[in-house]
Amino acid sequence: MLDRAHFEGLDTADPLAGLRNRFELPPGVIYLDGNSLGPLPAHVPAAVARVVHEEWGTDLIRSWNLNGWWTLAERVGERIAPLIGAPPGSVIAGDTTTVALYKAAGGARRMRPERRVILTDDGNFPTDLYALDSLAGSVDAEVSVVAPEAVVGVIDDTVAVVCLTHVDYRSGRRHDMAAITAAAHAAGALMVWDLSHSVGAMDLDVSQADMAVGCGYKYLNGGPGAPAFVYVHPDHQASFENPIAGWWGHRDPFAMDTRFAAADGIRRLAVGTQPILSLAALHSALEVFEGVDMRQVREKSERMLAGFISLAETRLPGFEVVTPSDASVRGSHVSLAHPEARRIMTALIDRGVVGDLRPPNLLRFGLAPSYLRYVDIWDAVEVLVDIMQTEAWREAGGPEGPVT
Amino acid sequence: MLDRAHFEGLDTADPLAGLRNRFELPPGVIYLDGNSLGPLPAHVPAAVARVVHEEWGTDLIRSWNLNGWWTLAERVGERIAPLIGAPPGSVIAGDTTTVALYKAAGGARRMRPERRVILTDDGNFPTDLYALDSLAGSVDAEVSVVAPEAVVGVIDDTVAVVCLTHVDYRSGRRHDMAAITAAAHAAGALMVWDLSHSVGAMDLDVSQADMAVGCGYKYLNGGPGAPAFVYVHPDHQASFENPIAGWWGHRDPFAMDTRFAAADGIRRLAVGTQPILSLAALHSALEVFEGVDMRQVREKSERMLAGFISLAETRLPGFEVVTPSDASVRGSHVSLAHPEARRIMTALIDRGVVGDLRPPNLLRFGLAPSYLRYVDIWDAVEVLVDIMQTEAWREAGGPEGPVT
Repeated sequence: MLDRAHFEGLDTADPLAGLRNRFELPPGVIYLDGNSLGPLPAHVPAAVARVVHEEWGTDLIRSWNLNGWWTLAERVGERIAPLIGAPPGSVIAGDTTTVALYKAAGGARRMRPERRVILTDDGNFPTDLYALDSLAGSVDAEVSVVAPEAVVGVIDDTVAVVCLTHVDYRSGRRHDMAAITAAAHAAGALMVWDLSHSVGAMDLDVSQADMAVGCGYKYLNGGPGAPAFVYVHPDHQASFENPIAGWWGHRDPFAMDTRFAAADGIRRLAVGTQPILSLAALHSALEVFEGVDMRQVREKSERMLAGFISLAETRLPGFEVVTPSDASVRGSHVSLAHPEARRIMTALIDRGVVGDLRPPNLLRFGLAPSYLRYVDIWDAVEVLVDIMQTEAWREAGGPEGPVT
Repeated sequence: MLDRAHFEGLDTADPLAGLRNRFELPPGVIYLDGNSLGPLPAHVPAAVARVVHEEWGTDLIRSWNLNGWWTLAERVGERIAPLIGAPPGSVIAGDTTTVALYKAAGGARRMRPERRVILTDDGNFPTDLYALDSLAGSVDAEVSVVAPEAVVGVIDDTVAVVCLTHVDYRSGRRHDMAAITAAAHAAGALMVWDLSHSVGAMDLDVSQADMAVGCGYKYLNGGPGAPAFVYVHPDHQASFENPIAGWWGHRDPFAMDTRFAAADGIRRLAVGTQPILSLAALHSALEVFEGVDMRQVREKSERMLAGFISLAETRLPGFEVVTPSDASVRGSHVSLAHPEARRIMTALIDRGVVGDLRPPNLLRFGLAPSYLRYVDIWDAVEVLVDIMQTEAWREAGGPEGPVT
C-alpha cells in the first residue's frame, strides 16, 4: 500500500537519513534537480570563505605550497576515486567535463593509432559528441554514432575507442558498464566512460575501464560548474599522451623547460592552472561522502526510483514513464513524458517542486539519495497530482531550459 | 635625488592612489608578486559569499537564468574588453590560459590550412610552447621556436600563425605588439597574442591582432587560477572554428542536437560548463578597473619601474638588472639576477617583501600600479639593501618555486 506512511517508514529505516543534515536546503523546496546542480553542503561556505580570506587574501602566493593549492586537483581526485572504484593515484580533477573527455578520449585514440573509429551512441550528452567530433577532425579518425542498444553489436576491430555516457541524461537508461567494457576489450578497443550522470548516486567500478570522466557539480554537489575529473587506469598512465599538454602536467614544471616531458602518473592529465575557488568548493563538498557506503546509496536510489515510478504509474495518468522499468538498467533520475511538459514543470517549480525540463516533452526528476527523504517523493507526486487536478498549470508559462 | 621623500611625492601626485583602497592587503607585507597572483579586492569576498549562499544555496538551478550564470563568461569578457582595446562582443572568459591558447591558436591555424608553421619564441611561457606543440601534433603543423629578437626576421609565407607572449615572464621584456602584428599580416600570417603578463598593468590595443588570450589571476586580481579569456577579432568570428567544440559554444545548446553548430559571435569560443565561483570572483574583481584610465596605469607602471631600476643600479651592487633599460620595451615587473637569488628571496619574504624566484638566479618583482605605492618600492629596496648588508640571507633556505 503506497501511502505517505509507507514513505515515512522508509525514511525511518534509512541508514543514510543523517546525510541530509550535511546540506543547506532552501525551505519549502523539494529539490529534484541535483542531477543537474547539486545543492550546497552546509560546511562548504565556510571552507570557501577561508580560501578567499585566509589563503588568497592573507597567504597570497605562498598558498600554492602552504595551503596545498598545487596538489588540490589530485587531492580532489583522491576523494572521488573510492566513489568510482578507482585505486589511489588514478583520478585527478580539473577543466570542464568537455575538455576532460577530449583529453581522455584523445589519449585513448593515440593508443590505437591503427584503428580509425571512435564509437559512441546517440543518447550521449551532446557535448560529448561535439568533443569527439572535434577530436576525430584533428586525428584522422571518424566518429560512429549508433543507437544505445546497438553499441555492443557493432564493436569490431576497426574501433579504437568506445566512448559512452553511463546514464542517459534524458531517459535515465543506464548502460551495462561491465558488459560493454568487456565487449570493447574483446575487440581490442579501449573503453572510456562518462560518469557525469551516475557518480555520487551509486557505487561504480571503473577498474576494468581504460579511462573515465565525470562531472563535479551534479551528484557530487561541488558547486555550479565545478571542475570535472578524469580517471586513467594505472596500467595506461605511463603511456598516456595528453592531447593538450600544459605546464601543470610537466614532470618538473618549475624547471620551465621549453620542451614538454610528462609527469609520472595521473598528474600528466593536468593542463593549465586550475580555478582554485571552484576546486576548493568541490574538495570540501566531497566530505559529504566520507564514511558513506556507496552500495547503500545505490540501494536507496533504486528504492526511491521504484517508489516514484509506482506512484507515477498509479496516480499520474497521461504521463509516460520514459525511464526503464528494470532497476538494473537505470540511473538515479526519472523522466516522465507529457505533451504539456513545459507548462507542468513551470507550475511544479512554482509550487516548490524543482525538477527540470528536457524539450520537447520530458519532465526530469533527479532522486539524489544523499539529501532527499522518501517522503519528498510522495509529497512531490502529491503536488503534481494536485496540479493536474486543478489544471492551473494550463496558465503557466515555460521556464527557460535549465542546464544539465 | 632618490630618497624616500621623492617617492612620497610621487604618491601624493598619483591619480591612481585611491585604487589601493579597493584591496585587502595583508598588514606588514609589501606585495611584489601580483604578476603571479593578484591580491584580494576588498569587495570580492562578499560577492563570492553571495554566489555561494544565495545563488547556489537558495536559488539553485534557477540561477543559470535568474542570476545570469549562463552569460557570466561573456559578461566577464565585456569587462576585460576595454582593458585590451577590444570592442564589445569580442572577448569571452573561460577555461585555463593553456586551453584558451590551444583554442585561439588552433582556430587561427585552421584559417591558414595551406601553411604549416606556427612561429613562436623561446622566451614564451613554457605552457604556451607545450600547447602549440600539442596543436601541431594534431593538425599537421610544425612549431618553429626562435629567439624573441629574431621573430620579425623569420616571418615568411610558410608561417600560418605567429603566437607570442607580449611580456616575457622572466625578464619583463615586452614585444612591440603593433610592429610584429604588422609583420605577420604583411606575410599573410595570423597573429595571436598571450597578454597574461601585461593585461591589467598597462593599456593595450589588440584591435589589429587576430586573436589574443590572457590570464585572470595576475594583474586582473581574479583569484587563484581564475579563468582565462580569449579575444577573437570581429572579422574572424564568423569563420572561427573552435578546435574543441562543446555545448556552451553551440548555437542552440538546449536543442540538444547531436551535431554541433557554432554560435554566432564570441560565444563559439566557449566549450564546457565553466566554474561559476571562480568566474564570479573574477567578474567581481574586475570592478577595480571601472573608471580607470589604463594609460594612467601604464604611466604609473613605467614610473615605478624606472624608480626601482634606478635604486637597484645605485644601491644594489652585485645585482644585474635583467629587465630592459628602455621603458618602451618592458612590462610591469623587474627581474634582478644574483647568484644567490634563492637565499636572498627567502630572506626578503621573511622580512615581508614578497617577490618570487625564477631559477636559477632571477629575483622577480611585480610592480602592479593598482595597489602599490611608490614608497613601497623605496621600502622594498631598503629592506633588500639591509639584508645584503647584514648578510643574514646567507642563513636562509630556499622557498619552493611559486607559481607564475
